[in-house]
Amino acid sequence: MSRKLFEKTIKIDPVFKGKIIDLEVQDVELPNGEQGKREVVHHPGAVAVICVTDSEKMVLVKQYRKALEKAIAEIPAGKLEKGEDPRLCAQRELEEETGIKAAYMKEVASFYTSPGFADELVHVYEAADLSTGEVHTDEDEFVERIDVTLEEAKNMIKTGEIHDAKTMYAVQYWEMMKK
Amino acid sequence: MSRKLFEKTIKIDPVFKGKIIDLEVQDVELPNGEQGKREVVHHPGAVAVICVTDSEKMVLVKQYRKALEKAIAEIPAGKLEKGEDPRLCAQRELEEETGIKAAYMKEVASFYTSPGFADELVHVYEAADLSTGEVHTDEDEFVERIDVTLEEAKNMIKTGEIHDAKTMYAVQYWEMMKK
Repeated sequence: MSRKLFEKTIKIDPVFKGKIIDLEVQDVELPNGEQGKREVVHHPGAVAVICVTDSEKMVLVKQYRKALEKAIAEIPAGKLEKGEDPRLCAQRELEEETGIKAAYMKEVASFYTSPGFADELVHVYEAADLSTGEVHTDEDEFVERIDVTLEEAKNMIKTGEIHDAKTMYAVQYWEMMKK
Repeated sequence: MSRKLFEKTIKIDPVFKGKIIDLEVQDVELPNGEQGKREVVHHPGAVAVICVTDSEKMVLVKQYRKALEKAIAEIPAGKLEKGEDPRLCAQRELEEETGIKAAYMKEVASFYTSPGFADELVHVYEAADLSTGEVHTDEDEFVERIDVTLEEAKNMIKTGEIHDAKTMYAVQYWEMMKK
């Protein structure tokens, strides 16, 4: 990394510690020597699962997202527990939200969702060797499974029913794999 | 939307108002009638630009991201000013960060980056009709332009130099367009 692109932490103000996220305001020394402020959200990280059934449908879960004030359909996903292995978390979340057991999870990608203000890192897996398991969601989690074709998924992007980065990445990935 | 997937707001606690983000803790009524808490980050929204030059290179900007404590290469992007048209914002940000003027901006997608806790919506455009303009970054913004081939971009994903959702979506989009 070039020296030019670095910001040294001068002071951290821990503004908020929540159930899911923490927020800090950091005083930093900018690359030009001036001081600046950065608002930083800490998040434990998450997994998301691309799961396509034998009948060539992608498994999505519809869920009300309070931040958006609407329900959207997303690929199955969930937060990492402290110290949890992402692959095991992916298997756990897929089964809990959809009732699908996946014996095999292939690592597809990992990405930061909002590098401008948050450290949330999402690990994306592709599920394989599917069998039937048991749905079991968290007590404050309400999801509805829907299985969609590629055409249906692309239409749901147009209507805004699919509207988040990880799911749109997954649909694009699926389309590319089919080509 | 099915009645089942809705969370009614009972109370909003405005925890923090920052330069870029605001944070609220909301008491909500869950679909089963129980109460829950949601941590919600408000963000003004952003634009991001897929810009491929005549020599078939994608234009990226390298930037230190305090939340990640590393520099990563991203497609040119920036926050929306209050009331700003996303297309004009995309043209403005592309020129400010890279010195490229784009007479034409095609809407490619829009997505929420972290629907679990934030309302940040990113509008993704593809730039066309390119000409030379003038670099002019914000006073607390330090970026380094790099132009990369598709192979280079794919390698940078492997090494973690490209590591965020919008840029990985953009690289996948570019690869799909080339097929």
